[in-house]
Amino acid sequence: MKEFFKVKTIEEALAYRTQFAPMASEKAPLADSVGRILAEDIHSDIDLPDFPRSIMDGFAVSGSSTFGASEGNPAYLVVTGSIAMGESSNLSVGPGEAVRISTGGMLPPGTDSVVMVEHTEAIDDTTVEVYRSVAPGQNMVTVGEDIKKGDAILSAGQVIRPQETGLLAALGRQNVMVFKKPVIGIISTGDEIVPVAQVPGPGQIRDVNTYTLMVHIIEAGAVAVPFGIVGDDYEALLAKCSQAVAQCDLVLVSGGSSVGARDFTIDVISAMEDSAVLFHGISISPGKPTILARIQNKQFWGLPGHVVSAMIVFARIVKPFIEYISGAAGDRQQTIRLKARLSRNVASAQGRVDFVRVRLLQASGATWADPILGKSGLISTMVKADGLIEIGMNTEGLDEGSEVEVILL
Amino acid sequence: MKEFFKVKTIEEALAYRTQFAPMASEKAPLADSVGRILAEDIHSDIDLPDFPRSIMDGFAVSGSSTFGASEGNPAYLVVTGSIAMGESSNLSVGPGEAVRISTGGMLPPGTDSVVMVEHTEAIDDTTVEVYRSVAPGQNMVTVGEDIKKGDAILSAGQVIRPQETGLLAALGRQNVMVFKKPVIGIISTGDEIVPVAQVPGPGQIRDVNTYTLMVHIIEAGAVAVPFGIVGDDYEALLAKCSQAVAQCDLVLVSGGSSVGARDFTIDVISAMEDSAVLFHGISISPGKPTILARIQNKQFWGLPGHVVSAMIVFARIVKPFIEYISGAAGDRQQTIRLKARLSRNVASAQGRVDFVRVRLLQASGATWADPILGKSGLISTMVKADGLIEIGMNTEGLDEGSEVEVILL
Repeated sequence: MKEFFKVKTIEEALAYRTQFAPMASEKAPLADSVGRILAEDIHSDIDLPDFPRSIMDGFAVSGSSTFGASEGNPAYLVVTGSIAMGESSNLSVGPGEAVRISTGGMLPPGTDSVVMVEHTEAIDDTTVEVYRSVAPGQNMVTVGEDIKKGDAILSAGQVIRPQETGLLAALGRQNVMVFKKPVIGIISTGDEIVPVAQVPGPGQIRDVNTYTLMVHIIEAGAVAVPFGIVGDDYEALLAKCSQAVAQCDLVLVSGGSSVGARDFTIDVISAMEDSAVLFHGISISPGKPTILARIQNKQFWGLPGHVVSAMIVFARIVKPFIEYISGAAGDRQQTIRLKARLSRNVASAQGRVDFVRVRLLQASGATWADPILGKSGLISTMVKADGLIEIGMNTEGLDEGSEVEVILL
Repeated sequence: MKEFFKVKTIEEALAYRTQFAPMASEKAPLADSVGRILAEDIHSDIDLPDFPRSIMDGFAVSGSSTFGASEGNPAYLVVTGSIAMGESSNLSVGPGEAVRISTGGMLPPGTDSVVMVEHTEAIDDTTVEVYRSVAPGQNMVTVGEDIKKGDAILSAGQVIRPQETGLLAALGRQNVMVFKKPVIGIISTGDEIVPVAQVPGPGQIRDVNTYTLMVHIIEAGAVAVPFGIVGDDYEALLAKCSQAVAQCDLVLVSGGSSVGARDFTIDVISAMEDSAVLFHGISISPGKPTILARIQNKQFWGLPGHVVSAMIVFARIVKPFIEYISGAAGDRQQTIRLKARLSRNVASAQGRVDFVRVRLLQASGATWADPILGKSGLISTMVKADGLIEIGMNTEGLDEGSEVEVILL
């Protein structure tokens, strides 16, 4: 096998991300923005709340009217009225006075706190006994206590979660600028590959990679466009790749598992205008024969044909590239890793990172990562797996009981 | 405040899930099935692979032809031809013979293993030197090694991940039976609530809950139908709730943060046909005044009006109910929890579970959960938070450095 380039480490491979420009931005309706990446910095143009707001049911008072009040020595306050919800009140409240207020009500002038109804007893319609003192600001939210006018509250690059949507709604935003979703083309190659709808003949297999890559792409927040299957035919592959590069922001070619097909992928890249192979080979197993090229400033990936290898390379290498061009800020690109203990010894070769599929088990009060045996061509091993562990380049293996970090699948 | 029922613990509340029937099933195209819940058990009707398949580039041989081969003492084999991809071969391979094969190729009769090309040297067109012996089964996948015909491979209730999609594609499935997505109605109540598009007047606030609940529902894999805002008006609320119950599988009413509105919700439930309040109050903070009723065999939830409380009750209580009726099997309903150390002491009341918002920080080689201060009415605290920690009923608080489990937000 020809090696055109020195094999890269994972970190060296990931460093190429910044050679590609992030997507342009577009306006999205707020209700459709969850999971999208924010493309603008948000400053608040209002105070939130913009009125002093009760967070309890009870009586709005000036805290000083309650000082010293206790079970044994209650304060007696004059009730001068009730606050209607969603309105400002003209009631003015003096020392020794109180007004009924509900959660969410606006405190009237002269009050700075709320006595909870549980700490009071009504004597009659106009008098209430108060058993506890309240400090100014207690049981209420002051103007701007949540967000102050002018505050920088969200930054471009943040993922929009439900709470960010809520904050934007509170500011009255119905639309928000987000990065466009990258459009990702998928090409499956190999004379042995047939469409899923077809019954494979002897020596043929169904096109699994198009499906697994499509759903991985959708999960990564991008748009998947399948371009179908191309046989091991240079001209046909060149035509399909040209079409995909023209229509997409990023192209994934999987397979070409045969020697000839691998060479075709490299030849096709060289034949395309404004193209350069950035690396060919990553020091990982499975997934070593991965290719990244830049074609007309777009990413063009050659992924292994084995389905498990293609999925692992996607999850660990390609996905961070997609997140980068999707505009995600650096600290959001980390995959959640769960700590667990290894259920038995695992051997590993030095000089490469080994990805081991594991099942998570709960036993003896701990979470265990239980390695799954099986060749990397077997999709059943991925179905049994809850996650992957990554065994470092300079490690010959890990002992039973070692703490490992599991990348969830 | 009237308490109609004894306040429930989280576990008691969650136990009501099984009183509601799972959704019916429907056929979904495979490419749209990711994240859906499988509604059928899947058995394989084929062997996978259904032919002996090379997983390396090299030479297909009978392992016995290579026994004893080494660098110093290579085996010399006669190359009788090449295997074309995607075809069965008529070549028959005898002892001392080999055929060229690529990754994914079908092993011809008489062979049981593959010598990697890296361990050979071509002498001429018909002779190859082999430097390492291979055992039968090496560098190839046998018939049924991935999946055996008749194997039970997936079960109803499993979440469909990319790898499950791949396995179903490998079996030739283009459609799959999944549980229908529950349709969830959202009603926001309160005289003080105005639509997001409107500039709030004095004492008014924008309808944040409809947005946060909508996106939470979408993230939970269900369909959200907003029914808008109803003021504190019994007849209007009854009409809106009747409409929502008729159209949806589950209804969420948020707010009624004022005393009167809370009573309206209970009154409306009682007024509806075939209804029963299952509980009113959960021993959690925030989120205590949560109501669950069964109306015409559908879930009807009364959620707190405070946005943070509503979000926490949704994430911890309502979501498992949605997952249950969505058909998810029990062991998939667990939220991922990340272990971390508490950055400082946190006080907590006994007799209830306290949810504390935390930011995750990396320092001194550990992950720290750093509590966020602020009242539960402040959405900015949720925006700053990466997750929640749950402080148990019988705990007065947690010390700095304690190990905690963070529920990611």
